Amino acid sequence: MRNLITDVAGVKVGSAHDAKLASGVTALIFEAPATASIAISGGAPGLRDAALLEADMTVEQIDALVLSGGSAFGLDSAGGVQSALREAGRGFEVAGQLVPIVPGAILFDLANGGDKSFWREPAYWRLGRDAARRALEPGGKDFTLGSHGAGHGATLVDLKGGLGSASAKSAEGFVVGAVVAVNAVGQATIGEGPHFWAAPYERDGEFGGLGWPAALPEAALTLKMKGAAPQNTTIAIVATDAELTKAQAKRIAIMAQDGLARALRPVHAAMDGDVVFAAATGRAGQSPDVIELTRIGALAADCLARAVARAVYEATPLAFPGALPGWRQKFGR
Amino acid sequence: MRNLITDVAGVKVGSAHDAKLASGVTALIFEAPATASIAISGGAPGLRDAALLEADMTVEQIDALVLSGGSAFGLDSAGGVQSALREAGRGFEVAGQLVPIVPGAILFDLANGGDKSFWREPAYWRLGRDAARRALEPGGKDFTLGSHGAGHGATLVDLKGGLGSASAKSAEGFVVGAVVAVNAVGQATIGEGPHFWAAPYERDGEFGGLGWPAALPEAALTLKMKGAAPQNTTIAIVATDAELTKAQAKRIAIMAQDGLARALRPVHAAMDGDVVFAAATGRAGQSPDVIELTRIGALAADCLARAVARAVYEATPLAFPGALPGWRQKFGR
Repeated sequence: MRNLITDVAGVKVGSAHDAKLASGVTALIFEAPATASIAISGGAPGLRDAALLEADMTVEQIDALVLSGGSAFGLDSAGGVQSALREAGRGFEVAGQLVPIVPGAILFDLANGGDKSFWREPAYWRLGRDAARRALEPGGKDFTLGSHGAGHGATLVDLKGGLGSASAKSAEGFVVGAVVAVNAVGQATIGEGPHFWAAPYERDGEFGGLGWPAALPEAALTLKMKGAAPQNTTIAIVATDAELTKAQAKRIAIMAQDGLARALRPVHAAMDGDVVFAAATGRAGQSPDVIELTRIGALAADCLARAVARAVYEATPLAFPGALPGWRQKFGR
Repeated sequence: MRNLITDVAGVKVGSAHDAKLASGVTALIFEAPATASIAISGGAPGLRDAALLEADMTVEQIDALVLSGGSAFGLDSAGGVQSALREAGRGFEVAGQLVPIVPGAILFDLANGGDKSFWREPAYWRLGRDAARRALEPGGKDFTLGSHGAGHGATLVDLKGGLGSASAKSAEGFVVGAVVAVNAVGQATIGEGPHFWAAPYERDGEFGGLGWPAALPEAALTLKMKGAAPQNTTIAIVATDAELTKAQAKRIAIMAQDGLARALRPVHAAMDGDVVFAAATGRAGQSPDVIELTRIGALAADCLARAVARAVYEATPLAFPGALPGWRQKFGR
């Protein structure tokens, strides 16, 4: 196991970023079309082709998902992913035409010090194409955490944010994984210290192994948030190799949102676009019953909480003056 | 009155198309940010940045809306509209950055005979930018109906489809208008004849003045639909100068869907992406009470039914062999 969402059979991931722009894109490609749905819990979502993920809509399977920086401009990234997929002969066939189905979500990283004069050109379309091409390569099972892809330009209130991932296997043998771009309005760590809210879910020291603080600091529950201008949003994908219906995938997405609740404080706020996509590749060849489905959902939430902490743990600071420190830099670990 | 949606104060429209590609884009720009919502009634919607239009989401106002051909590839068009708006200094200000908010919807016109090898480049991004630039020009109150903009490549089962628009004034003086790209799976006309299902709502012979047939043909209710591969979807915008909340705008969008029901047979099917956006510019400086709101909604439905018929009435055939005839051509009027 790589401890990445690509441990789920049928899932590949590629990232691309532009250091001058200080932003990037992460594309998740399904080797064959996958069933997927969504849970939208933030008050300011930025989504593309996501309406079709509801259970009452007709299209059952999708080709890829994309997470992007760039606020609403970043919704162009899905077009670039579609271009790369179409180039690879992929897509939903309608009347002899291939239409790759690529829902996507964005986060706000326009105030992180990068050069944001990109808007005369479809910068995110190109980043999306680059990320998807990387995912389509034979090496598309490996990708780098921290300040990469959609997490390249991401921040929290007190630390650099980034791209995180984690995986696990259920008692029944279903593989579950998560990938997340963490750009939360608040914190992933407790008070002023290095401990992560997600500590109870950590496996094998994957984000430093500090565990829970001996005593909670007095100000642990005091909300610390980015200023009046919200520069936030945490966007995630969870995946499993189980066979799911769209309605079951929606249930997994809803349960996985609880992982964000456990790892971030606050989350799901009015100016957050917090979204979780859930996808099932079906490669395990088995459908879960209602209890197994619950285990998958709970495991997806755990993976997502761990992925949030790993994103922050692995992040490195941007090169701009006044850029927020990375976790390792700040805490000297 | 132009009998166009641009009769609504604060609304401008521009279209662009590519004849070789046989597709196009129509952008509707608000002179100042407008309140808007959406009603999604087809089973296969293709939408961008539409989740924020729900009443429980935080962003209250948007800069523009876009209707596009190109199926899911056409969702790139909103990025081009954003580019043109940003160029004009428009957008939602967050942390000193301007982010134009541009929800959009697409229709499927990939099987109409055009050259659909566009996907190596962001063709719809460029068409979106061209359409928005035209809308932003001083002449942005005039636009052409029929085979233009998002209706350029549109078809019905038996006739060329197109872009339609209409407007009206309520008893209270609120102006209401609609614009629609008609690419329905079925018919806008009754049986084999030239009469429109929308005839009861016609004003001043705006779509030929034929009225209702003397007797309904026997096969009037027999469904005629495009083949096994669905190549459909009708997408629309209704607008008013009333001051509305987002929740009221959603009510108008839901009522306006009834205009599609009255003008098209069938509509709202499993493979249709039928969507109506509703927007309020507030330029009348007055909020409707619940009765006035109902009048506006009913008028929006009437305008939308009329706009559908006008789209078909004004359409001219594509230049490809085997292209469907236009209404005037077929019926010699």
